[in-house]
Amino acid sequence: MLQPYDLTAAEAARQIRARELSPVALVESLLARIDALEPKLKAWVRVDREGALAEARQKEEEAAQLPAEIPGRRAARSASAPAAVKGLLLGVPIGLKDIFYTAGTPTTACSKVYANFVPEYDATVVARLKLAGAIVLGKTVTTEFACMDPSPTVNPWNPAHTPGGSSSGSAVAVAARMCPAALGSQTVGSTLRPAAYNGIVGFKPTYGRVSRYGVVPVSWSLDTVGWLVRTVEDAALLLQVMTVPDPQDPVCAAEAAPNYLSGLAKPPAPRVGLLRRFFTEHSDAETRRHLDAVAERLALAGARIVELPVPESMDTALADQQLIMAVEGAAFHQPMYQKQAGDYQPRLREMIARGLGIDGISYSRALERRLRFTADAHRLAARADVLLTPTTPTPAQADRTNTGNPIFQGPWTSCGLPAISLPSGLAASGLPLGIQLAAAPFAEARLLAAARWCELILDVHQRPPLGD
Amino acid sequence: MLQPYDLTAAEAARQIRARELSPVALVESLLARIDALEPKLKAWVRVDREGALAEARQKEEEAAQLPAEIPGRRAARSASAPAAVKGLLLGVPIGLKDIFYTAGTPTTACSKVYANFVPEYDATVVARLKLAGAIVLGKTVTTEFACMDPSPTVNPWNPAHTPGGSSSGSAVAVAARMCPAALGSQTVGSTLRPAAYNGIVGFKPTYGRVSRYGVVPVSWSLDTVGWLVRTVEDAALLLQVMTVPDPQDPVCAAEAAPNYLSGLAKPPAPRVGLLRRFFTEHSDAETRRHLDAVAERLALAGARIVELPVPESMDTALADQQLIMAVEGAAFHQPMYQKQAGDYQPRLREMIARGLGIDGISYSRALERRLRFTADAHRLAARADVLLTPTTPTPAQADRTNTGNPIFQGPWTSCGLPAISLPSGLAASGLPLGIQLAAAPFAEARLLAAARWCELILDVHQRPPLGD
Repeated sequence: MLQPYDLTAAEAARQIRARELSPVALVESLLARIDALEPKLKAWVRVDREGALAEARQKEEEAAQLPAEIPGRRAARSASAPAAVKGLLLGVPIGLKDIFYTAGTPTTACSKVYANFVPEYDATVVARLKLAGAIVLGKTVTTEFACMDPSPTVNPWNPAHTPGGSSSGSAVAVAARMCPAALGSQTVGSTLRPAAYNGIVGFKPTYGRVSRYGVVPVSWSLDTVGWLVRTVEDAALLLQVMTVPDPQDPVCAAEAAPNYLSGLAKPPAPRVGLLRRFFTEHSDAETRRHLDAVAERLALAGARIVELPVPESMDTALADQQLIMAVEGAAFHQPMYQKQAGDYQPRLREMIARGLGIDGISYSRALERRLRFTADAHRLAARADVLLTPTTPTPAQADRTNTGNPIFQGPWTSCGLPAISLPSGLAASGLPLGIQLAAAPFAEARLLAAARWCELILDVHQRPPLGD
Repeated sequence: MLQPYDLTAAEAARQIRARELSPVALVESLLARIDALEPKLKAWVRVDREGALAEARQKEEEAAQLPAEIPGRRAARSASAPAAVKGLLLGVPIGLKDIFYTAGTPTTACSKVYANFVPEYDATVVARLKLAGAIVLGKTVTTEFACMDPSPTVNPWNPAHTPGGSSSGSAVAVAARMCPAALGSQTVGSTLRPAAYNGIVGFKPTYGRVSRYGVVPVSWSLDTVGWLVRTVEDAALLLQVMTVPDPQDPVCAAEAAPNYLSGLAKPPAPRVGLLRRFFTEHSDAETRRHLDAVAERLALAGARIVELPVPESMDTALADQQLIMAVEGAAFHQPMYQKQAGDYQPRLREMIARGLGIDGISYSRALERRLRFTADAHRLAARADVLLTPTTPTPAQADRTNTGNPIFQGPWTSCGLPAISLPSGLAASGLPLGIQLAAAPFAEARLLAAARWCELILDVHQRPPLGD
């Protein structure tokens, strides 16, 4: 029987508004699920049981006062106005990667350095979730400061394999149905890679679409808030809630939010730009075959698939991105690093040390090459509704000493395109495979509609083997 | 009697198309003017007499084949298509700051380092000017590599005073009527400052509006092509010709060009955001009084003047801009500097040496502060049609050891806003005063219409005292 913990965010919101589901029952179901699985999966830094239950009781009362239908789909045209977002996630519990500021509760970035940090305000995106009626269920595990040192979190598909990073806790919590949705972040591949490794949906909007105010930074010119969910509809729902201009984040574009949800009802077959070269060169044979099979299946269903050339400028994109991240990361960490370098884990320590040693002209040249790649990528994205690639070069590897290869997720973060990872099948090892779709800047509505169309065709949402 | 050399670019183009003026006579008039004044003013690196005359003869033939009316004003709606631009500047001689690539003729950047450099292609903007029918009259003097070492060029208003920089030759050539228009560039204040110091109009579009392909760079994240003219109409005419997406410049926005000329015919009274604080703090008393007088005059004529607050982030903008320029300049010059540091003039040598010593994290922090200022400035610009400030803190100083203070022009370059300097009166010293208008990004049409309105009200176009 379907349990409340199985519901997606959109399903839960609908049932709560229709009084078919009590938010309290939903929170209790998720807490029981956490009790059962958390000792094994280690996805959470802290679960706010009492707070979430108290919130749920209040949301239950609120739901009783409201019309039984969610205003979202019609009113969302003006989602930047508080009214349109209010209630969209009424009573829906959400996990937050432990880099999102939550007023009055610790935000540790899973680091000794931030062990005692208690923010005084909510991150803008957390405030937006609350405005929409969401319940903060707790904070999920991140690799230290959302960087490269592996976290203790366990991949629910196979404990010997990495769950990915840096949003490992959020991905595993959602994959294991300990919450329907959780916030992550992506500076290179930290949302889409763990999504693919755990068989769920990962989404990152265009750089500048969603505020980063109150998010512990990695790298100011790359950091993007993302989220882990199980359906395209939930990806759109969270975007609807979180799209709002924010003067506190200087790159947060002051554009009116379109209605991301209305395009999902009957999405047309998309024009798909298939990218090979760089992506086949770096993939294993199974991933290459899988991409071909997915493309064939989408074509049979009516998608127009066109192979597009991968720009040469992509070849240096990851190395430049890592240099940029090292410098900008070092700029943020320097004051703390000077005092407590020993409190950092080794890979992050190494990154900061590297960043402190990079001269201005090397960083400038990397930024300039990135600009060239960005222009190439934007032109490429304009040639199709979505660009199709594998999300990762291989499924999650049986290697817990690193969080996996960001080479396919990184480029779209580097040039700021919105991107989504969809689960698309299982590898021979039993681990999930994922495809990545990217679109032109600020074309999230088109990206989500195309992703919804692909989701309907591929229909491969699967559950990790957790004995349920 | 009005001489051909007195004509603006737009007037010359109209008369040539109407067969009232021979392009040959126009070139001859300008060459005679150059013969008379160049020994004193030193505005030109080279004048292409033979080439310009040969071109003029050809344009005369072309003009005879064409309808007598310029298609510009009606056809300009699709200015990005070659047809709409063709003929807009038929037979009009233009000067080029000697940093613009001209195929087969030297482009020296007025530096020993580039003394023997002969580009194989035209800069995109040069190709566009030629497409519009313009004649390249010659190359004008720049400070070395468009940086801070003063050039030998002489201010036609008073030889003891600086002509400004770095586009000193272009500004003086236009002010002294040796050509109706000349290209310049602006990384900090290199177009608008010499425009103000020489009593003419200087214009720089939004960062990303006009291609920099084939322009010797100073600093990739700041460099903007600009131009020196004597009327707002000419500023618009050149923008119309040069606005075209260019994949060779990764920041050159692929936007369709509006018709910049049609809005000039009957411009409405603008909403003017008057900025004081930072600008009055750094101005001399005469400049402060002048700004008040200009604002009063505009208000009397019907402009809605609102004083707007200068964002605090402007206070660090110039220092950050200079750090960014040093790093990016050093990144470009490093390979040459390693071999021939002694060939550079002292201020540029100092800038390169400084840039080579700046670490990545300092540059990153400057970029991040610039981003904050940019966001503040864009919000500010959205509150009015144009922002009004003095162009310079004082008129051109009686000090030829430096090119003047960029503190008022720099901020709008730093944050990418389009800006124009208009001559607005004379100081007690007899040197020109200028006002600067800036507008929201890519709002050049609005900026030019407002500038045209102000030009009609202020009507202060004056001639330098050259005995004619």
